[in-house]
Amino acid sequence: MKTLVEPEAMAALSREWRRDGLRIGFVPTMGFLHRGHVSLMERLRPEVDRLVVSVYVNPLQFGANEDLSRYPRDVEGDSKKCHDAGADVLFLPTDLYPKGFSTSVHVHGLTDGLCGAFRPGHFEGVATVCARLFGVVGCDVAILGEKDWQQLAVVRRMVRDLALPMQVVGGGLVRDDDGLALSSRNVYLSPGERVRALSLSRGLFAMRDAAAAGERDIANLVTIGRGAIDADTVQYVEIVDADDLVPLATLDRPARALVAAYVGRTRLIDNVALG
Amino acid sequence: MKTLVEPEAMAALSREWRRDGLRIGFVPTMGFLHRGHVSLMERLRPEVDRLVVSVYVNPLQFGANEDLSRYPRDVEGDSKKCHDAGADVLFLPTDLYPKGFSTSVHVHGLTDGLCGAFRPGHFEGVATVCARLFGVVGCDVAILGEKDWQQLAVVRRMVRDLALPMQVVGGGLVRDDDGLALSSRNVYLSPGERVRALSLSRGLFAMRDAAAAGERDIANLVTIGRGAIDADTVQYVEIVDADDLVPLATLDRPARALVAAYVGRTRLIDNVALG
Repeated sequence: MKTLVEPEAMAALSREWRRDGLRIGFVPTMGFLHRGHVSLMERLRPEVDRLVVSVYVNPLQFGANEDLSRYPRDVEGDSKKCHDAGADVLFLPTDLYPKGFSTSVHVHGLTDGLCGAFRPGHFEGVATVCARLFGVVGCDVAILGEKDWQQLAVVRRMVRDLALPMQVVGGGLVRDDDGLALSSRNVYLSPGERVRALSLSRGLFAMRDAAAAGERDIANLVTIGRGAIDADTVQYVEIVDADDLVPLATLDRPARALVAAYVGRTRLIDNVALG
Repeated sequence: MKTLVEPEAMAALSREWRRDGLRIGFVPTMGFLHRGHVSLMERLRPEVDRLVVSVYVNPLQFGANEDLSRYPRDVEGDSKKCHDAGADVLFLPTDLYPKGFSTSVHVHGLTDGLCGAFRPGHFEGVATVCARLFGVVGCDVAILGEKDWQQLAVVRRMVRDLALPMQVVGGGLVRDDDGLALSSRNVYLSPGERVRALSLSRGLFAMRDAAAAGERDIANLVTIGRGAIDADTVQYVEIVDADDLVPLATLDRPARALVAAYVGRTRLIDNVALG
């Protein structure tokens, strides 16, 4: 496995691969990799000729009061996990954006609700970094985790709207045995906080079970979910159309239940499919 | 020459060409083609295997009080000119943007001054339509006219920033024998307005001549240019760095003099190289 730091080197290697007709897969990450990330690599590996994993903590997607400076890092551990999962390149840019970088990409509508309502500018940062990473890596297919369900929808929409020459696929969310959705941010949790963090998935599972038992009223389902969650601040518990993220009144189509909450100083998100 | 209306058909043909290793050139236009557009096609034709010209009057780049609804159109004439210049495809989308299109691309800084100051949202519309067109056409190289100097700078920057897998080149401005920069909008001018419209290039040439004679003070040069212009409203007469469009105080590097003015109801722009 090669480790590349310079975007120009990454782009040059990618051009070479494309000239040779090789299919390029890409897993963009912010590092501190866990089994969720590894599952994305393993899912893509058999479908592509070359696999690139990027580790880049993108400042554009962090708000002023968010955890950019303390975001967990572990380059050595990340490198080993990428190698073991069969990556061909670990792309580890220090300066991803060229001097005078001044372009931003915004996806309207999809970014208004859910996390978008609580993290102004976040999805513009996500769309912008993904557009640039996709261009530099020259990928035929990129995989993003379904844990960030709204992010996946936003990036899919951007790729479709700008007719970028690639596909975006979603990779299933991975949970610890106790149900906690894997996240690099879980490392922030104290043992006591971790116990309370489990209430997010418990709330989502309660909604899923109630839906499976026939409950169709969204307000009732949300009440069930919210009642199970023991967090310091619940930002949202919502059930939306799985594709366009529009809030539903009745569970009458493929839907997603999503939650965002603070446990202590740690912001956690999670989601499950409903119906 | 093929005429394609559906973006999906254009993208499919482009994918086929790319699979065959063919180099694709692209001339995006808003139609009502003139010798300026034809010069862009002729410039690119020998450098590429396949040449695509698009004609699309992009609503995103028109302001509420601008001339979208009366923008001149001549599909038959355009088609003949493209054919005669050796285009392989005339791409004539009616619905360029897919249902639910919700992505926009913004280039900051470069779009603050000059036309950007007078046409809010214009360059966001330009950057967005170019990003989508470049994706659909799958071009290796696109050529844009230097008459829209700021547009060329904005599109170049976007392509660099998003690492789109293509080049952007500028094609020289073409003038009528009397010096008027060719523009589809010239058709709006009455004979009397046309005479006054000539004062724009006269002003630019006066600045160029004064610079060639040794004048280095930008304020003096602008006074010379402005003094020659007989228009109803002069929006700007400016001299800026040719690349980053930053206004200059002294003519100490490659610069561009640019003017925008209304003659009657018609907005005209023009520019020349200085120094």
